[in-house]
Amino acid sequence: MAKLRASNSLLRGVEPYDPKYLPAQVGLNANETTFDVPADVRQAIEGEIARMAFNRYPDPMANELRQAIAEWHGVEPDQVICGNGGDELLFDLALAWGGEGNALLNVPPTFSVYAANARLTGTQVIDVPRRADFSIDQDAVVERASRGDVGMVVITSPNNPTGDVAPLAFIERLLQATDALVLVDEAYMEFAPREASAEPLLAKYDNLVILHTFSKAYRLAGVRMGYLLASSAVVAELTKVRQPYSVDAVSQAIALQVVRHRASFDEGIALVVAERARLVSELQALPGVTVYPSAANFLLVRFEQDASTVWERLYERGVLVRDFSAGPLTAGCLRISVGMPQENDRLIAALQTILA
Amino acid sequence: MAKLRASNSLLRGVEPYDPKYLPAQVGLNANETTFDVPADVRQAIEGEIARMAFNRYPDPMANELRQAIAEWHGVEPDQVICGNGGDELLFDLALAWGGEGNALLNVPPTFSVYAANARLTGTQVIDVPRRADFSIDQDAVVERASRGDVGMVVITSPNNPTGDVAPLAFIERLLQATDALVLVDEAYMEFAPREASAEPLLAKYDNLVILHTFSKAYRLAGVRMGYLLASSAVVAELTKVRQPYSVDAVSQAIALQVVRHRASFDEGIALVVAERARLVSELQALPGVTVYPSAANFLLVRFEQDASTVWERLYERGVLVRDFSAGPLTAGCLRISVGMPQENDRLIAALQTILA
Repeated sequence: MAKLRASNSLLRGVEPYDPKYLPAQVGLNANETTFDVPADVRQAIEGEIARMAFNRYPDPMANELRQAIAEWHGVEPDQVICGNGGDELLFDLALAWGGEGNALLNVPPTFSVYAANARLTGTQVIDVPRRADFSIDQDAVVERASRGDVGMVVITSPNNPTGDVAPLAFIERLLQATDALVLVDEAYMEFAPREASAEPLLAKYDNLVILHTFSKAYRLAGVRMGYLLASSAVVAELTKVRQPYSVDAVSQAIALQVVRHRASFDEGIALVVAERARLVSELQALPGVTVYPSAANFLLVRFEQDASTVWERLYERGVLVRDFSAGPLTAGCLRISVGMPQENDRLIAALQTILA
Repeated sequence: MAKLRASNSLLRGVEPYDPKYLPAQVGLNANETTFDVPADVRQAIEGEIARMAFNRYPDPMANELRQAIAEWHGVEPDQVICGNGGDELLFDLALAWGGEGNALLNVPPTFSVYAANARLTGTQVIDVPRRADFSIDQDAVVERASRGDVGMVVITSPNNPTGDVAPLAFIERLLQATDALVLVDEAYMEFAPREASAEPLLAKYDNLVILHTFSKAYRLAGVRMGYLLASSAVVAELTKVRQPYSVDAVSQAIALQVVRHRASFDEGIALVVAERARLVSELQALPGVTVYPSAANFLLVRFEQDASTVWERLYERGVLVRDFSAGPLTAGCLRISVGMPQENDRLIAALQTILA
């Protein structure tokens, strides 16, 4: 048998991304909205699918969807690019503004995929860690970003897993200090106060890129659809690296219906926001628990008891959350997605027993 | 306004892939099957979609689909990996067995995406061009592949755009001569004689990878689903570079129904094969036309008249084909997908007028 040549040395030591999926009655681990799209939207989607051709290639640039997104956000269609989930766009950005000579400035603890993409594209990662309270060291980030080796800075707002929003004044300072791409990942922004979004800065800064996804507030995690808002110059570069048919026709049709019916999702968003507030106060009432303020659809919670043991006891009771306690900056922490009222009730009841 | 830093130098001069989509009454340009999935399969698919959750992340490895594909092909599930169309898998392979120190051995004229992916991943491309009759220079390929700088060899069988099948004895010689990955792209294999597939070699060679797609014979170009058959060692490496949620839940559900109902597609495949034979004889009867033998669902046709003018005249008559005449190795050539009988009739009638 012929030998198999070793793969690219960039892969040495890379562990495949493990979403740590486990079956559970109450899944509060992946920051999905835990209930499906509204029935009227579902019906509109199924009507569209029944009419569409499966056998023809999709529109590469998803122009109908792109147009609808552009109108929604008040930008031009050539400032929008859709991807196979936010994940594809994050990778495309790593290819286009990463690689040799283009470091990524990362602000951990944050979404692990940024650093993973950097590794695969041979991009150096420069960490400017958050403070103990998870606030961004703004001066340090601005100073480091202004040096010539940084190709891209990622600011996640609200941040995953810490839940905090990045101040707009800081983002603008950063945009002024560097010609690097400043990616503001707003995957969870629909759950935050409206004025928190960096969108108004798009008109002023060619190096600003905002990531949105349909996976969270718009309940399409299974469908895979994300998009970037950026200058047309950035979008044009990304069309060089993206896979031309990355966004399938069915997902385009589904997302277009969601955009058209987006008002139908407001009630679900409001429910999550209300439940988040309730969860914060009920969690804070538990012994040995610190809840970090969150503008997202999840809460980072620090336990005085061993967090991995708390995670296990929760799982034994049918409640799956995400264990962040192995991370150096998130020791003792679990991340808990906000579910439906009855799911949150089960979580609280389980924790009351476990921590008693 | 802040300046925008230039993107990675690998992107200099890259032109975005242009599928050259144009609206047309008769679309014979993209090698799709020109008719949709059978009605019974369609019904099964819509039933599945009505039952599924959109709001939860998909199974990253598409295990139910993977299992069904493994049973179909008589391999183990860990020898199968699904992707967002064959395109994603081709890129993953370029990342994993390309990059610095891993050249791609390419055999043009062939599918342009292999070389494009090499460029984006900083992989050197070594071309061993086909002969004037489009046959592979087997000795030259084997010799070049056996040198240590080659990370991957791609053999497309049937080849796009030339239609010929690569001899199995050659593929086996190649597998024995090199430890580089040998990718046999069998995207069009369902239209070829059964014995043409390299699949029986999988059990013997760890460095063999076979690409399949649902986009052609299985009529799901719009849905985006491809898969690789390979050794489990190759699949394990690819899990390090793939995006974990690249294959959406809706596409997984659709493809699973297609695998389960795959016998329903045989009639369509037989129709395309029969129409291909009819098209060959009717095209050969036209003045100044050379038709290359094809085992795929398209024909490469060389015209004595200016091929771009022929392309234009066809398009004026509502028939869209693909113009390859600008390529150095395919001067004078158009590629024509085999359509339904009435579409092929229109093509022939139009060409009779144009070439008269």
